Amino acid sequence: MPQRHPQPIVTVDVVLLTLYKTELCAALARREREPFEGQWTLPGGWVHADEDEDALSAAGRILKTKAGLESPYLEQLQTFANRHRDPRGWSVSITYYALVPYEQVKGEQVQWRAVDSIRSLPFDHLNILRTAVSRVRSKTLYSSLPVHLMPKTFTLSELQRVYEQVLSSPLDKRSFRRRIEELDVVEVVPGAIESSGAHRPAQRYRLKKRFDGALAVADRNLGLKVG
Amino acid sequence: MPQRHPQPIVTVDVVLLTLYKTELCAALARREREPFEGQWTLPGGWVHADEDEDALSAAGRILKTKAGLESPYLEQLQTFANRHRDPRGWSVSITYYALVPYEQVKGEQVQWRAVDSIRSLPFDHLNILRTAVSRVRSKTLYSSLPVHLMPKTFTLSELQRVYEQVLSSPLDKRSFRRRIEELDVVEVVPGAIESSGAHRPAQRYRLKKRFDGALAVADRNLGLKVG
Repeated sequence: MPQRHPQPIVTVDVVLLTLYKTELCAALARREREPFEGQWTLPGGWVHADEDEDALSAAGRILKTKAGLESPYLEQLQTFANRHRDPRGWSVSITYYALVPYEQVKGEQVQWRAVDSIRSLPFDHLNILRTAVSRVRSKTLYSSLPVHLMPKTFTLSELQRVYEQVLSSPLDKRSFRRRIEELDVVEVVPGAIESSGAHRPAQRYRLKKRFDGALAVADRNLGLKVG
Repeated sequence: MPQRHPQPIVTVDVVLLTLYKTELCAALARREREPFEGQWTLPGGWVHADEDEDALSAAGRILKTKAGLESPYLEQLQTFANRHRDPRGWSVSITYYALVPYEQVKGEQVQWRAVDSIRSLPFDHLNILRTAVSRVRSKTLYSSLPVHLMPKTFTLSELQRVYEQVLSSPLDKRSFRRRIEELDVVEVVPGAIESSGAHRPAQRYRLKKRFDGALAVADRNLGLKVG
């Protein structure tokens, strides 16, 4: 069957997010070729139809190559597909977002920038970035998503702080703890009690195994409007 | 810049949904060429890079050509992209879902089938269909989405019935009305009071202009668990 229409370019781009100090940051990678050679963009690349099994594995390959990451939390965001987004012609970007604890980030190929400080990017990457940040913030209100930004073990106060940093907004402690309990995604680390200085000793928690690459979703928000 | 990798096929497929009698139904179209020639699949086709502005307008073109629809509620669902879904090779399907009142459906090119009765479809279309139905049902719980299945004017009881039919589940009338009021998407049709037989006369409503192609989202569900 002959192809009667010119076919679009197919790429995968990834919004890789971490929390560095108190800021939600995105990874940018330097482009190695035209267009926009030498500029910083979202990590991405062509689909390699001869080696990638599917779009998700293309995203995984990109994260591994550009940021040394093995298996961060990775989810499809949206597809941006039109005539204008790439100077080379009609193009499709299947986009993903990934969350990773700062401790796991390796490699010097990416640069981290606070998402709210990024004002322009080549292609339509600013739009893709903002779509991802808005998705992550709205999911944070109703799910266990930010758990994937945490180190292996953490206290509930640390977890709440990460939620608050992603949202740039305080949460009510009692509602937050009640909802996290309902979500049933974390478990006590046996014997791991943290006692530091003036504070009461705090229990350390970890993500339950079955939520490794998964989310729990609440039917009410996690405390934002209650606080 | 030479392309070093073979490029995928790029198609757009649409899950077009309506409510017929009391059932959520999807439109199927007969394929005019191989693969699967003569079989019923989701309406879809190649992106025409030379005429489509973007993927959304490709979806609009497909709906217009195959179902005579001008501007139904249309939203991107997800992109299915892998080596296995199409016998012609690595392929991308950018998928959309559309909602339309049964009254607006034209043309004999599509066949309507109750979504819960469809057991197999060519390609990965059954998976796409199920993803769409699950998205529509979960959005129905928290938003004004099913309003786009309604005729121009309707009573609140008719609206509740449509929500219940999409969800296959009853809703609590008081919670439902309170949430619909909070969503602020419908307005009274002046003078349109329906009086039929034994029932109390019921006010007719219509969608507010600014929600024509849009959604209002609630922060709590619309009554399912309250009932």
